[in-house]
Amino acid sequence: MSSFWGVNIRLSVFGQSHSEAIGAVVDGLPAGFRIDIEKLRSFMRRRAPGRSGLATPRREDDEIEFVSGISQGALCGAPLCMIIRNRDARPGDYSEFADAPRPGHADYTAAVKYGGFQDSSGGGHFSGRLTAPLCAAGGVCLQILEDRGVSVGAHIQSIADVADGRFDPVKAGAPDFERVRQNPLPVIDTAAGAAMAERIERARAEGDSVGGVIECAVAGLPAGLGDPMFDGMENRIASIVFAIPAVKGIEFGNGFESAGLRGSENNDPFAYDGGRVVTSTNNHGGILGGITTGMPLIFRAAVKPTPSIRAAQKTVSLSMKKERELTVKGRHDPCIVPRAVPCIEAAAALAVLDAWPAPNHK
Amino acid sequence: MSSFWGVNIRLSVFGQSHSEAIGAVVDGLPAGFRIDIEKLRSFMRRRAPGRSGLATPRREDDEIEFVSGISQGALCGAPLCMIIRNRDARPGDYSEFADAPRPGHADYTAAVKYGGFQDSSGGGHFSGRLTAPLCAAGGVCLQILEDRGVSVGAHIQSIADVADGRFDPVKAGAPDFERVRQNPLPVIDTAAGAAMAERIERARAEGDSVGGVIECAVAGLPAGLGDPMFDGMENRIASIVFAIPAVKGIEFGNGFESAGLRGSENNDPFAYDGGRVVTSTNNHGGILGGITTGMPLIFRAAVKPTPSIRAAQKTVSLSMKKERELTVKGRHDPCIVPRAVPCIEAAAALAVLDAWPAPNHK
Amino acid sequence: MSSFWGVNIRLSVFGQSHSEAIGAVVDGLPAGFRIDIEKLRSFMRRRAPGRSGLATPRREDDEIEFVSGISQGALCGAPLCMIIRNRDARPGDYSEFADAPRPGHADYTAAVKYGGFQDSSGGGHFSGRLTAPLCAAGGVCLQILEDRGVSVGAHIQSIADVADGRFDPVKAGAPDFERVRQNPLPVIDTAAGAAMAERIERARAEGDSVGGVIECAVAGLPAGLGDPMFDGMENRIASIVFAIPAVKGIEFGNGFESAGLRGSENNDPFAYDGGRVVTSTNNHGGILGGITTGMPLIFRAAVKPTPSIRAAQKTVSLSMKKERELTVKGRHDPCIVPRAVPCIEAAAALAVLDAWPAPNHK
Amino acid sequence: MSSFWGVNIRLSVFGQSHSEAIGAVVDGLPAGFRIDIEKLRSFMRRRAPGRSGLATPRREDDEIEFVSGISQGALCGAPLCMIIRNRDARPGDYSEFADAPRPGHADYTAAVKYGGFQDSSGGGHFSGRLTAPLCAAGGVCLQILEDRGVSVGAHIQSIADVADGRFDPVKAGAPDFERVRQNPLPVIDTAAGAAMAERIERARAEGDSVGGVIECAVAGLPAGLGDPMFDGMENRIASIVFAIPAVKGIEFGNGFESAGLRGSENNDPFAYDGGRVVTSTNNHGGILGGITTGMPLIFRAAVKPTPSIRAAQKTVSLSMKKERELTVKGRHDPCIVPRAVPCIEAAAALAVLDAWPAPNHK
Repeated sequence: MSSFWGVNIRLSVFGQSHSEAIGAVVDGLPAGFRIDIEKLRSFMRRRAPGRSGLATPRREDDEIEFVSGISQGALCGAPLCMIIRNRDARPGDYSEFADAPRPGHADYTAAVKYGGFQDSSGGGHFSGRLTAPLCAAGGVCLQILEDRGVSVGAHIQSIADVADGRFDPVKAGAPDFERVRQNPLPVIDTAAGAAMAERIERARAEGDSVGGVIECAVAGLPAGLGDPMFDGMENRIASIVFAIPAVKGIEFGNGFESAGLRGSENNDPFAYDGGRVVTSTNNHGGILGGITTGMPLIFRAAVKPTPSIRAAQKTVSLSMKKERELTVKGRHDPCIVPRAVPCIEAAAALAVLDAWPAPNHK
Repeated sequence: MSSFWGVNIRLSVFGQSHSEAIGAVVDGLPAGFRIDIEKLRSFMRRRAPGRSGLATPRREDDEIEFVSGISQGALCGAPLCMIIRNRDARPGDYSEFADAPRPGHADYTAAVKYGGFQDSSGGGHFSGRLTAPLCAAGGVCLQILEDRGVSVGAHIQSIADVADGRFDPVKAGAPDFERVRQNPLPVIDTAAGAAMAERIERARAEGDSVGGVIECAVAGLPAGLGDPMFDGMENRIASIVFAIPAVKGIEFGNGFESAGLRGSENNDPFAYDGGRVVTSTNNHGGILGGITTGMPLIFRAAVKPTPSIRAAQKTVSLSMKKERELTVKGRHDPCIVPRAVPCIEAAAALAVLDAWPAPNHK
Repeated sequence: MSSFWGVNIRLSVFGQSHSEAIGAVVDGLPAGFRIDIEKLRSFMRRRAPGRSGLATPRREDDEIEFVSGISQGALCGAPLCMIIRNRDARPGDYSEFADAPRPGHADYTAAVKYGGFQDSSGGGHFSGRLTAPLCAAGGVCLQILEDRGVSVGAHIQSIADVADGRFDPVKAGAPDFERVRQNPLPVIDTAAGAAMAERIERARAEGDSVGGVIECAVAGLPAGLGDPMFDGMENRIASIVFAIPAVKGIEFGNGFESAGLRGSENNDPFAYDGGRVVTSTNNHGGILGGITTGMPLIFRAAVKPTPSIRAAQKTVSLSMKKERELTVKGRHDPCIVPRAVPCIEAAAALAVLDAWPAPNHK
Repeated sequence: MSSFWGVNIRLSVFGQSHSEAIGAVVDGLPAGFRIDIEKLRSFMRRRAPGRSGLATPRREDDEIEFVSGISQGALCGAPLCMIIRNRDARPGDYSEFADAPRPGHADYTAAVKYGGFQDSSGGGHFSGRLTAPLCAAGGVCLQILEDRGVSVGAHIQSIADVADGRFDPVKAGAPDFERVRQNPLPVIDTAAGAAMAERIERARAEGDSVGGVIECAVAGLPAGLGDPMFDGMENRIASIVFAIPAVKGIEFGNGFESAGLRGSENNDPFAYDGGRVVTSTNNHGGILGGITTGMPLIFRAAVKPTPSIRAAQKTVSLSMKKERELTVKGRHDPCIVPRAVPCIEAAAALAVLDAWPAPNHK
C-alpha cells in the first residue's frame, strides 16, 4: 500500500473496516493552533454512517481520540495522531468475498496484490470507512484554512439523472457553503435535493444503487499557491481525491465542457477589483498553470454507484477457478454521494494546506 | 516549482520554452535495456511542432542528445539524461506578457509566484514545449513496457463538437493503436478525423482555437499494479497527466458517465477466459480499488482550447494597475489536441512503469 | 517536524513523552507474514525503562496495541499501526524547562521552532521515549529479515573510558549476537561489561552521566542492496540512526580509523568462498559504493552522555532574557547507551528492509 | 540508483565518469537570485582535477553550461540545469575491472546490482567525478546562503597521521574560512599542511594512497532550522555527505569524543550575548534535537584512502569464478581529501538550504 501523502503536510492513514481502530497521523500543522473539537465533531457527523435513512444502517459515533500532537489544548508541532474505534463491526458478513470477488469492488485486485492475505472483512483498507480519518485530518485543515480566511464547501452536483445548480464560479463563498449544509441533502436547489432523495430511496427499494457528481469550491485563496509541473493544484487535488473510494473522474473549472469551447469563449478576461487582480468569469476554476489565481478554486468529482447491490451477479470462484453467482448481503449504502461530500471538502483542504508553506507555528 | 515526479521511476523535467535546451532525467530504468533510437525519434515526431499545417509554424527537430545513462549501447543503471536543444527560439515575441498577462495563460500566476523574475519568454517553463522531454522520458518507458507485453495507445476522442468512436474497452490493443496512428489525425473514425481537421482549420482562419478530449488505453497489463490509497493507478496517472499544460479533467473507465448509472448497470461481471480472470464488460476502466484488474486501463483527458488567440482580449497592466486590451501575436497552435496525444501516451507509460517495481536490470 | 521516513518501507512515528500514547505506522510490509508477538515483546523489553538499577526509575510495560494491519493473525498489506500507552507519565516534572532550557537538551531549539507551543513535558517528541515505537517497527522488520536469513545484532563498544572487544568483521553472525544478549550489559567481554556497569553506577552516584559507542552488525545480507548516490546503505542507515536522540556520530566499517590507513592496508582483497564472492578482510564494513557486498554490514554510533544531570548548570530565562542557574530534577538515565542498543538494531533493520524491494506478500 | 535528493531543494545528479557530460538539476531555488558565475567557477576550481601535482593528472576545465533555470541573468523559478562536458575521458583504461573488481571500489557491487550492464568505465556513476555537479549545485547554494549571512568553510582535519588544528567551535566564521583557502592545502596550521603534502607525495611515490578527515563549519545560521525526527540537521547532512564517494564516517560537534565524556563536561551552558541566546562552549556542534541553535554547525567526515593503488592486489575473475591478481593502472589521486574539501562544503550548503523553507523569490 501507499498510505502516505503530502509534501508540506504529511498524512498517514491507517486501519481497516473491521480492525480495532482506524486513524490518521498528520505532520506539519502549525504549532499553537487550537482545534475546535465541537466543530470537528460536527464536521465528522456529516460523513458518519447511520445518520439518515438514506445511508447504511451501520452505526458508528466516530468519536476521535487524540493520541498525540496536542499540548495545553493546542497543536504542539509534534505529529497529530487521531484514532477512531470501530465499534459496530461485524466481520462475519464478508468472508465469502475473499473467494468470490464482488463485481465493482477491490476484492479481486486485493487478492492478487496481497496473495490472499488481504483483510477481506468489510473491504478491509479499501472500505469507504477509511474516509473517516481522512475527514478527521481534513477537518483540522479546514479550521486552519478558515483561520487564514479560506473557506471550502461542496454540494451534490447530480445524483442519477437529477442535477443541482452550480456554485457561482466568481462569487461562491462561505455563506453559500453554509446554506447548502442546512438542507437535508447538501444541494443548492432544494427541489433537486428532494428528487435526488427519491432516486436514492427508489434504488434502495429495488436493491440497486446510484452514483453522482460532487462540486467543490475553495474561496478566499491567495494567488500563487501550487507547484507546477507535478505539484500544481490540479495534480495535488487529484492525487488525494482519487484516494476516496468510488471516485472515477475529476475536472477543474469548466473541465470537460471546455473541450467543446473555443478559446475566445473559454478564456477569462483579467480585471481589477479594488486593487486586486481578478477575472470577470471563472472558466479556469481558479487555477492557471497549476497555480491559484485567487479566484474560487472549483472542481467536480464523479462518484460511481455503490457496487454492493442486492441482485444476483456473475462472478468467479478463485479457488475453484470457475464462474458462479453471488448475492451480496450485509449493510450497504444505496448511494455514497451524500456522505462523500465532506470527504471531498476534507481532501480539498488537505491539498490546499499542503500547497501552502507556512511557519512552524502561529 | 516541483519538477520532480515518481516513486519507482524518478523523473526530473527541466527547461523553458526559450532556454538553451530542455530535457529530462529518468532514474530507475532497468539496466541492460537497449533503446530503439529510431523508434523513439518516430514517437517524438508525433508530438513535434511544425509537422502539419494544423499546428504552430515553429519548427524544432527535437533531436535527443543522450547525455548520460547509456553504456555500450544499453541503459547502464545510471540516470538517463536526455536534452533537446531549442533552436528556433524567438524570445523577443513575448516580452509584453510579463506585464499584461494573457487570459487563460500562466503569465499572471507565474508573476505572482516568482515575483516577476519568471521567464516569460514563450511561457517559460509553463510552455507546452516542456512536453517534449516528457515524451522523451515516456517514449523510453513505452519501449520497456512493450518488451513486457504492454502497449499504450491514444486517440482524439473529440475536438470541438466532433466526436470520434471509442476504443473497445474489452478488446483494445496494439493493432487498434497502430491503426489510429496511420490516420492524418489520430482517430478511429476517419470521417470524424476529417471533420475535426475542418474545425481546427476554421478556428485558425478566424484567429480562434478549439479544445478536445483524448482517450488513452493501456493493454496487456498484469493484475495487481497500483498502490492505494494515495498511489493507486488513478492517483498516479492523474498526478502526471495534469502536468501537461491545458489538461483540465480526467476520467477513468466510465468516468463521469458512471455517475448517472445504477450499480446494476455499472458493475462488470467477473468471468474466466482461458484460465484468466476477466470482466465481460469494462466500465471500471481496468482499475478497481486503485489496482489494475488486467483489463485494458482506459482514461480520458479534457484539453482546453489554446488560450493564445488573435482577437483582442481584456487584461490588466500589472505595473500600471489598470485594465487594458491585449492582442497576442506570435506562433500558436489553433488546437493543441493532436500534439497532446503522444504526450498522454508518454504520461501513461511513465505512470504504469512507476507502479511496476522491477529488477534493477533486464 | 518530519516524522515520516522511508522509500520501500514507509514509517510514521508519533507521540510525546507524556501524551496519551506513542506509536508508529509502518507501510510496505509483506502481507502474510506472522509477527511473533512474544518475540517482539521480548525485544521491546531490552529497551524498556525501569529494567535494571542502571536506568531511569520510570516504569512502563510498553505493551503494544495492534490497531491495524493484521487480519487472521498475519500482516494483511494494510499499514501496521501499533500504539503504546503512556502510563507512568508525570507531566508536572518538566514545566520549568520551557522557560529555562536544559543544557544539552532540545528545550531551547524546540521553543524557537514551535514558538513556545512545544510540548515541553518530558522532552515532548524529542524524548528518548519515542524510540519505543521505533523499536516496535524495527522489531517487526527484524523478524521479517530473520525469515530471509538476515540477523542483526549490536553490543556496547564502549562506555566512558571502558572498551569492549569488537565483532569479528568477517564472521560475525547470529550466535555472536545471541551470546551478547545473555550478558547483564550487552557486551562481548563480560569483564568490560562489569567495568562499564561500575562507571554508570559511579556517574549516577555523583549525579552525573556517561556516554558510549554502540557497534552493530548485519549478517546474512545478499550483495546488491542499496541505491547510490543518495539512498546508498550509509545514507539510509545514517538517516534513521540520527533520529535516535543523543546520537552524534556514525561510522561504517573501519570508519574514522580508515582515514589514518593507507590504501594498501585498507583495501579488502576479493576471494571465492564456496562459489560465493567474499572479501578476506572487512574494512569496508560490507558496503562498497553504497551497495552491500554480502559481507557483514558493520557500523558504530556515538551516543553522548545524557544531558540531564543533577549538578546546577548555567542557562537562561527566555522570558526574562537573562542568565540563571538550573537544577534538573526528575527521573533520568545516568547512561542511555544500554537501552539504545536495541534501538540501533531496530534502526538498522528498518534501513535494510527499506533497501530491499520485495513482493507485496510472502 | 537513487540520484534524487531533497525536500525544499530538489536535486538530481546525473552522468558517468566517461559519459558525454555530467550535471545536476536543482529545483526550489529563489527566483531573482543572480549567480556570480566567476565566483562559482572559482569554487569549482578548488575541486577540479589536475590542479596540482598532488592530484590525478586527468585534466578537466569543468566549465559549467547553464542549460535552463536562468532568465535575464537571474534564477527564474524554473529548475536550474547545469552540465559539464567530459573532455579528457579515456574509456579504454577501465575495461578490465568489469570482470576483475578492484578491491575497495564499487566494481563488484555495481556488477551485482546492474547485472553486468553498469558503465565500468572510470567507475561509471560511482566515480568521484560525480562530485563536480554536486559542487556546481552546492556552489550556487553557498552564494544564496552568503546572501542570507551564512558562510560555510571546511579544512583538512587530518591526512594519514598528520593532524591540523580545529576551527574555534564558538567563533569560527567567514574570515577563518577565507584564511584556510589561501594555503596550498586548505588547513589552519600551515606546518601541518606541509607535512600532509609530504605524506601524499610519499604515498604517490610508493604507488599507495592515504585518507583523512575533513572538518566543516557553518556560521551565521539562525536558530530553528531542521526537522526532527528524520529530517533533523544531522540526518539531512549525513544523507548527502555519504553521497560523496569514500566517506565512511561523520560526526557532529564533539562526536565520538563526546562518548567518552561525562554530561557535566559535554553539556554547553546557555548564556546571553547582546540579547541573543548562545552557548559558551559548543560541544553540541550547533545542533540540539536535530535543530540548529544558532551556534556554528560543526561536523567532520572521514575519507578512506583512495582504493586505486599501484601494488598488485588479490581479486577474483567473475567470469571464470576464480581468484586472480590485479594491477590497477590509469590516472589516480594518491589522496582524494584535498579535492573533497569543497565537496563537503557543497553538501553542507545543500543540506542547510534544504532545511530553510524560503519564499519562491527574493
